[in-house]
Amino acid sequence: MTLPDVKVDSLCLSRELEQLASFSDAAPPAVTRVLFTEPDRQARLFLKKLLAEAELSIREDAVGNLFARWPGTEPALPAVGTGSHTDAIPFSGRYDGTVGVLGGLEAIRALKGTGWQPRRSIELLMFTSEEPTRFGLGCLGSRLLSGSLDADKAAQLKDGDGLTLEQVRRQAGCGGSLGDVRLPQRYYSAFVELHIEQGPLLERMQIAIGAVTAIAAPAALRVQLEGEGGHAGAVLMPERKDALCAAAEIILAVEAVAKSGGSADTVATTGVCRVHPGAINSIPSQVTLEIDVRDIDLKKRDQVVKKLSDAIQDASRRGVRLQVELLNADPPAQAGREVLGAIQTACQRLRLSCQPMVSRAYHDSLFMARLCPTGMIFIPCKDGISHRPDEYSSPEAIANGVRVLALTLAQLAEGAAR
Amino acid sequence: MTLPDVKVDSLCLSRELEQLASFSDAAPPAVTRVLFTEPDRQARLFLKKLLAEAELSIREDAVGNLFARWPGTEPALPAVGTGSHTDAIPFSGRYDGTVGVLGGLEAIRALKGTGWQPRRSIELLMFTSEEPTRFGLGCLGSRLLSGSLDADKAAQLKDGDGLTLEQVRRQAGCGGSLGDVRLPQRYYSAFVELHIEQGPLLERMQIAIGAVTAIAAPAALRVQLEGEGGHAGAVLMPERKDALCAAAEIILAVEAVAKSGGSADTVATTGVCRVHPGAINSIPSQVTLEIDVRDIDLKKRDQVVKKLSDAIQDASRRGVRLQVELLNADPPAQAGREVLGAIQTACQRLRLSCQPMVSRAYHDSLFMARLCPTGMIFIPCKDGISHRPDEYSSPEAIANGVRVLALTLAQLAEGAAR
Repeated sequence: MTLPDVKVDSLCLSRELEQLASFSDAAPPAVTRVLFTEPDRQARLFLKKLLAEAELSIREDAVGNLFARWPGTEPALPAVGTGSHTDAIPFSGRYDGTVGVLGGLEAIRALKGTGWQPRRSIELLMFTSEEPTRFGLGCLGSRLLSGSLDADKAAQLKDGDGLTLEQVRRQAGCGGSLGDVRLPQRYYSAFVELHIEQGPLLERMQIAIGAVTAIAAPAALRVQLEGEGGHAGAVLMPERKDALCAAAEIILAVEAVAKSGGSADTVATTGVCRVHPGAINSIPSQVTLEIDVRDIDLKKRDQVVKKLSDAIQDASRRGVRLQVELLNADPPAQAGREVLGAIQTACQRLRLSCQPMVSRAYHDSLFMARLCPTGMIFIPCKDGISHRPDEYSSPEAIANGVRVLALTLAQLAEGAAR
Repeated sequence: MTLPDVKVDSLCLSRELEQLASFSDAAPPAVTRVLFTEPDRQARLFLKKLLAEAELSIREDAVGNLFARWPGTEPALPAVGTGSHTDAIPFSGRYDGTVGVLGGLEAIRALKGTGWQPRRSIELLMFTSEEPTRFGLGCLGSRLLSGSLDADKAAQLKDGDGLTLEQVRRQAGCGGSLGDVRLPQRYYSAFVELHIEQGPLLERMQIAIGAVTAIAAPAALRVQLEGEGGHAGAVLMPERKDALCAAAEIILAVEAVAKSGGSADTVATTGVCRVHPGAINSIPSQVTLEIDVRDIDLKKRDQVVKKLSDAIQDASRRGVRLQVELLNADPPAQAGREVLGAIQTACQRLRLSCQPMVSRAYHDSLFMARLCPTGMIFIPCKDGISHRPDEYSSPEAIANGVRVLALTLAQLAEGAAR
């Protein structure tokens, strides 16, 4: 198959990434862009403007997933999808997710620039809330698209202020019903996501492209502890039921279980610790912890979650009431063979080194894999750093990724009907 | 000495306490009223209105301490002071501090109602920010009044948003210079503060009044930990420098040192634990802890602070950078003999049981004791609970306290010149 000879405008893409980063609730270089906040709204407007300039037809669904379509010569065939997210956790960086959205747009512009026409339509996706920041559950958009999350349950998810997803999405101007977000099984023939690695392997091995073979399986727990508050001066130590002391034991247990209880690949993190009332002279009465557990092996991960649940219950001997909620426990995803093959072929044509690898981070592709054959293209990032202001991928690394994505889309758009 | 026969309007006082509680950033029954926030501004306005109705002459200093004077027949003599605070830590109750301010006002109204005239002027004080909520340092007003805090250092104190005390007090409309807040040594001849016990002893012993003989010595530490952030999925356990895991060790060390390292009276509390960035899928890179240590024995408390500092440093073996700041370490205060005597005499006249006791909580009186002979009147509170929404003192207990305060003020206002 003859593949088009794409030219990527690296300077333009860098500028667009920089502009997108300016929509933030944190001071540069940090980026904070939480679902349906003002920076998220501005980022969506900015993206829609770029999509319109590229002459793509835009559609937004009831949860705010954004679709931009380049119609193929046989528009009735299932389309080929690509895309990622633009939301950013507090004080993170510029490249996570955004490279797959703006890079996906640049891949389409580069393909268009060659005069080549796709047989299948190519559709760029910006997923709503890949990050779990606001509602405690990541991949809201792709979970709903793939039918992995019940629409009624999604509607009732609550943020830290007690607002439901249904309320905030309507306030944000998303019409229609969440029940209509789910896509039919033959909507896409394949999906591919470009993303920074968020780990150090590609950079260490000096390899341009990672072809993802599997995405690790995440689980998330929320632990609510209720002890007894009181004046820090007046309640003697033996009479206390300090919720933060109990939480501290759990935080250390999370670390210990991940280190000893799983495989070398097991990771577990207490990323959230909210203390009530949170005053120096008041004994903490309530603490909320949020814990993330991952492994590329589903069975090992679930063993760790089980051990962790036991360790958490152990804190109740302090007289503190515990409530443990399993927020999500998703199975891992395997890449589609045809997508993996197309990525590897693209790398060969472009003479770029390519390494099959697993993704330790989860992505919207984890859920898109339930709809259609799915793959991911990883590019190196500096020191493997992500979710931090100093997250960085070079313009060259990004351009390589965009070229590989363009040629992968070109192959998949020619592919036989399923 | 003949003491006036005071009548306390318990219903009016209950209503005023209720109204004051309505100025709050938390839903009832919880009260949150932090220095120079909107509820604090409203509470100050409400109080000024009541003071004006009682025909007291009002003065406000540069840090927002409020003075309301009832001139004596010999107004050139040093005055007798009483008062407390109206600020409230997040999600606390209705009685802490407020009973000493509105109860102080009621004591003055009751004395006025008898037709009695004081020889020395009697002055009611509402101290600015007894609670350390906003600037990490309690008793801002009384520290400055007593010269225990340098005015330039106070001006530069920063709140959680990086605003200085100098900035926020000016925004709140406090004119003049912080350097002028300090009172001369002969401004007051004596000071007495009415307060809820914030401990269970009076209620358990069924005693109406506690006459405070000494106030425990508080110390406060702030620990800032800086580890390494990163993606919770991508960084393997052995490569982590998780600031929250290190903080958890410190939280447990605070508890262990207080339990084993001091006396039976030693208490230590980690009341604040702020995590950055605070997202479930991000390894905590920075944590701030605020720790409160108290003992009625200064030497023992300082031993505990020393042990704690060693335990905190131990967390650096995790590769986490530590910064430890001693926010304050105040010496305990002894009550003035003449004030203690006046309180005991007042109880005898009123046939109320009276128990000499130490205050484990600190109060503005700790600093007023550096200016003049000082004492405190404690009243029982339910289950010893304080700094919680269910904090409670009965109208009868409060009325007893107000009557004792009125007769104590009457005696002190007649007292010989120092």
